[in-house]
Amino acid sequence: MRTFRLVIACPDRVGIVAKVSHFLASHNGWIHEASHHSDAQSGWFFMRHEIRADSLPFGLEAFREAFAPIADAFSMVWHISDSAVQKRVVLMASRESHCLADLLHRWHSDELDCDIACVISNHDDLRGMVEWHGIPYYHVPVDANDKQPAFAEVSRLVAQHQADVVVLARYMQILPPQLCQAYAQKVINIHHSFLPSFVGAKPYHQAALRGVKLIGATCHYVTEELDAGPIIEQDVVRINHSDTTEDMVRLGRDVEKMVLARGLRYHLEDRVLVHGNKTVVFA
Amino acid sequence: MRTFRLVIACPDRVGIVAKVSHFLASHNGWIHEASHHSDAQSGWFFMRHEIRADSLPFGLEAFREAFAPIADAFSMVWHISDSAVQKRVVLMASRESHCLADLLHRWHSDELDCDIACVISNHDDLRGMVEWHGIPYYHVPVDANDKQPAFAEVSRLVAQHQADVVVLARYMQILPPQLCQAYAQKVINIHHSFLPSFVGAKPYHQAALRGVKLIGATCHYVTEELDAGPIIEQDVVRINHSDTTEDMVRLGRDVEKMVLARGLRYHLEDRVLVHGNKTVVFA
Amino acid sequence: MRTFRLVIACPDRVGIVAKVSHFLASHNGWIHEASHHSDAQSGWFFMRHEIRADSLPFGLEAFREAFAPIADAFSMVWHISDSAVQKRVVLMASRESHCLADLLHRWHSDELDCDIACVISNHDDLRGMVEWHGIPYYHVPVDANDKQPAFAEVSRLVAQHQADVVVLARYMQILPPQLCQAYAQKVINIHHSFLPSFVGAKPYHQAALRGVKLIGATCHYVTEELDAGPIIEQDVVRINHSDTTEDMVRLGRDVEKMVLARGLRYHLEDRVLVHGNKTVVFA
Amino acid sequence: MRTFRLVIACPDRVGIVAKVSHFLASHNGWIHEASHHSDAQSGWFFMRHEIRADSLPFGLEAFREAFAPIADAFSMVWHISDSAVQKRVVLMASRESHCLADLLHRWHSDELDCDIACVISNHDDLRGMVEWHGIPYYHVPVDANDKQPAFAEVSRLVAQHQADVVVLARYMQILPPQLCQAYAQKVINIHHSFLPSFVGAKPYHQAALRGVKLIGATCHYVTEELDAGPIIEQDVVRINHSDTTEDMVRLGRDVEKMVLARGLRYHLEDRVLVHGNKTVVFA
Repeated sequence: MRTFRLVIACPDRVGIVAKVSHFLASHNGWIHEASHHSDAQSGWFFMRHEIRADSLPFGLEAFREAFAPIADAFSMVWHISDSAVQKRVVLMASRESHCLADLLHRWHSDELDCDIACVISNHDDLRGMVEWHGIPYYHVPVDANDKQPAFAEVSRLVAQHQADVVVLARYMQILPPQLCQAYAQKVINIHHSFLPSFVGAKPYHQAALRGVKLIGATCHYVTEELDAGPIIEQDVVRINHSDTTEDMVRLGRDVEKMVLARGLRYHLEDRVLVHGNKTVVFA
Repeated sequence: MRTFRLVIACPDRVGIVAKVSHFLASHNGWIHEASHHSDAQSGWFFMRHEIRADSLPFGLEAFREAFAPIADAFSMVWHISDSAVQKRVVLMASRESHCLADLLHRWHSDELDCDIACVISNHDDLRGMVEWHGIPYYHVPVDANDKQPAFAEVSRLVAQHQADVVVLARYMQILPPQLCQAYAQKVINIHHSFLPSFVGAKPYHQAALRGVKLIGATCHYVTEELDAGPIIEQDVVRINHSDTTEDMVRLGRDVEKMVLARGLRYHLEDRVLVHGNKTVVFA
Repeated sequence: MRTFRLVIACPDRVGIVAKVSHFLASHNGWIHEASHHSDAQSGWFFMRHEIRADSLPFGLEAFREAFAPIADAFSMVWHISDSAVQKRVVLMASRESHCLADLLHRWHSDELDCDIACVISNHDDLRGMVEWHGIPYYHVPVDANDKQPAFAEVSRLVAQHQADVVVLARYMQILPPQLCQAYAQKVINIHHSFLPSFVGAKPYHQAALRGVKLIGATCHYVTEELDAGPIIEQDVVRINHSDTTEDMVRLGRDVEKMVLARGLRYHLEDRVLVHGNKTVVFA
Repeated sequence: MRTFRLVIACPDRVGIVAKVSHFLASHNGWIHEASHHSDAQSGWFFMRHEIRADSLPFGLEAFREAFAPIADAFSMVWHISDSAVQKRVVLMASRESHCLADLLHRWHSDELDCDIACVISNHDDLRGMVEWHGIPYYHVPVDANDKQPAFAEVSRLVAQHQADVVVLARYMQILPPQLCQAYAQKVINIHHSFLPSFVGAKPYHQAALRGVKLIGATCHYVTEELDAGPIIEQDVVRINHSDTTEDMVRLGRDVEKMVLARGLRYHLEDRVLVHGNKTVVFA
């Protein structure tokens, strides 16, 4: 079913829902799904509606125009999207294939509703797998002593492919600040720990040293501060003393790919609203 | 914060949310929490609002009167409740104390917002624990050859204490049909299996025989058919070959009490809507 | 590290561990991993050792010969395997690709230590994916009115490929009794429900009708009775009222593939001991 | 069933299991449960046996004497305990009752096999609940400006009651170093976060600020460094944007008490072996 997704954040006050739902009803809009969140601490209100596209008399542009006065009156930060228009995704990976293979399979089997524009990797290892799916593969090696040229090329490719979202599917390189800024809230990373524990390199080794009994993964938006952006989704898996660091790496892979797939799905369906350094996820 | 909880189920169509939210906004009602569910299969719409009581110019009675025309127009099954009016709960138990002790502690420490009217048990074992909490305890033995007198007494006590909810906290007796009918959707049971597996007696023994790798518990409304009423909440815990039936009983106790406490909480907060043999739980 | 896996089941009595460990120590065998289970109900004892192959002065054949007298004395059901000898796996699938793709990727990325001999399917849909991995694909259509020829061909292929294990990765066909018998404890199925709930066809639809709050998957050995064989592994995922049957199918896929991958891994590593209709899994 | 629990840690080498199991078998010892762990990183071996007491011809003292030469030969750190001799537990609490009430109920209903010697609290709030259980309650107020006298009194009480274990059931005070040292690996704390995240005060507030999607609890041995001792057990619970800090506190309580109860149970059954800053838990 084709829907329009109307996503709104604004200062909380009486009458927001009434105004929005009256607007929708007055245009005969059939609400397929509605979610609300009133955040007492920040005093903000968050709202997401899925409206059946065929119940409305107009398209996105006309909707935007008609809705703008309400949005202004309530100082809304808002957007509306069409479920029939797939977001363009650029995937970035390194050598480890589990997250990439997982996303590709979900896409290939029509579970993940998006347009995968290309895959960019600092290694050439995963080319075959990607190209079998009919997706362009760009090998952009990163010179440890001078990363700038590589990231210039990455930026160029991301722009050329008109990415709506960039997914770091275990890319293992830290994006430069200007890329983080240019694609704020559009770069999704999977970190292989339960953040804020074990920021940075080799989180499973850190976890092994600390002797934790659960390991986890965190899907978050990338910001300039490493592994500190707004968290979209997390999960954990139980380990015990008999699990070596290698076992953790293996067990962790399953959590990583599940958490990334869920987080990306939420993003693609416009279910994630960022406010400050936190997210509202209308899952 | 004192809220009014407006809970609505009705055939789905355009304009329900608009009408209800306009009604609320026109009376300056501040929506603290709102949940919606549109069930495509049944064609029904479900809705729950928590409105700050102090934002409205009237109380429950006046609200009911003012809202009635809307409810009629949309053929709503609905009710509104006041968070400041505690539901009266009658707890029923047998010999096993874990669910009862758990609920009593949650109530005693102000986590569970209700008025525990009394405890009824077919054994006298738990009297001390209950009376320490200042709650009346009724010992109503059940004669296996003639259960009628006991259930007549149970019915009398439940009526006398004006129960809004009856909780079978491992009561281990099957309520007679007339009691189930008289308190439809008001009797909550905890069954010590992941229903629909292992209906009836000794579910952990059934689970041990089948060799399952997870055991569970199910909180549901009681209907005339044993262990078949609408499910409110379920959960499971992992076991393995080294767990004996006794271990399962021990591990299961923790799941039972957690699931029952969650299910009861949802009910007390008017978060559970029953439709047919299924529930909508606005958790 | 190459290990020998010594797996033993026998009636329980004093001295088994002493005898076995003395045997190992007398040959300088370095125990890498040891697991024991004493089942009080059946009076049986179960045991699994992984011994570093390079610590022993002999290979499997000589080990078997030297150990036989102990095995006889304790009436052991036992076997020993070499971690360096990969089990031959025949995968069977239908149209749904998630379990197959998951297993192929784990194998391709060296996570699953086995030799995938071939894939047999009653449809031709997944040929490309399989052949990209360099694995033979056999399309054996099943005529609903006369299944015998298809299963004769399946039996022939399984025998020809000298399968140690047959994995039904959502094969969706019921194997005939003679195949179940011929490969007893060697055919692993993934059923898309938390057995014993929802045996047979369309378990997610059954789950939706019953209104459960968790859905699951079960990995088990295939026996002649449908969905009733010894359970190796199970898991569940939470759902709620807003999840349609289609959502359940999607959410269930992730549980299915994880549960099947774990179950198969246990089997490949000789961690599963079947006794009656139950399993001991030294995970 | 009465058992002797033989717990051993020693440098790994060939023949340990053989020697120990031969010793047991030579005295007709019936092994009820056996667990082994070989830690490749440290080169240490860990082992726990439960032996049926009535299968052995001697008691603990004679066992110790007979076993000492083996222990010496393998440089074992070891102890043996009698399941019939309950450990003496001193519980410490503050104002929050959930962990204390949970442990008291498990003890009262014979689930937790120990002797609760007394409860020490810096507040008097929980006296009634404790005394109803027939357990002495000591109110030892802590002067924020001079904590020394309080901790001297605590030390005196712990010594007087001959505590084998001290459990900080949300005690909310930091024990002085000398107490930590005097009762090394005998003081168990429950911290209300998934360590190492959110060390110190108000972890739920820290979690709310960071916007995590799961909150947790950690049961660990107390060392001089705050919240940094060897972890025994951890678990988490899912939260989302709609959960306020108060909701987290409520949801967290259930995780805290479950994790503490599990951790304490492992300790009481001699299932926890500490090596460096990590634990081996033969659960």
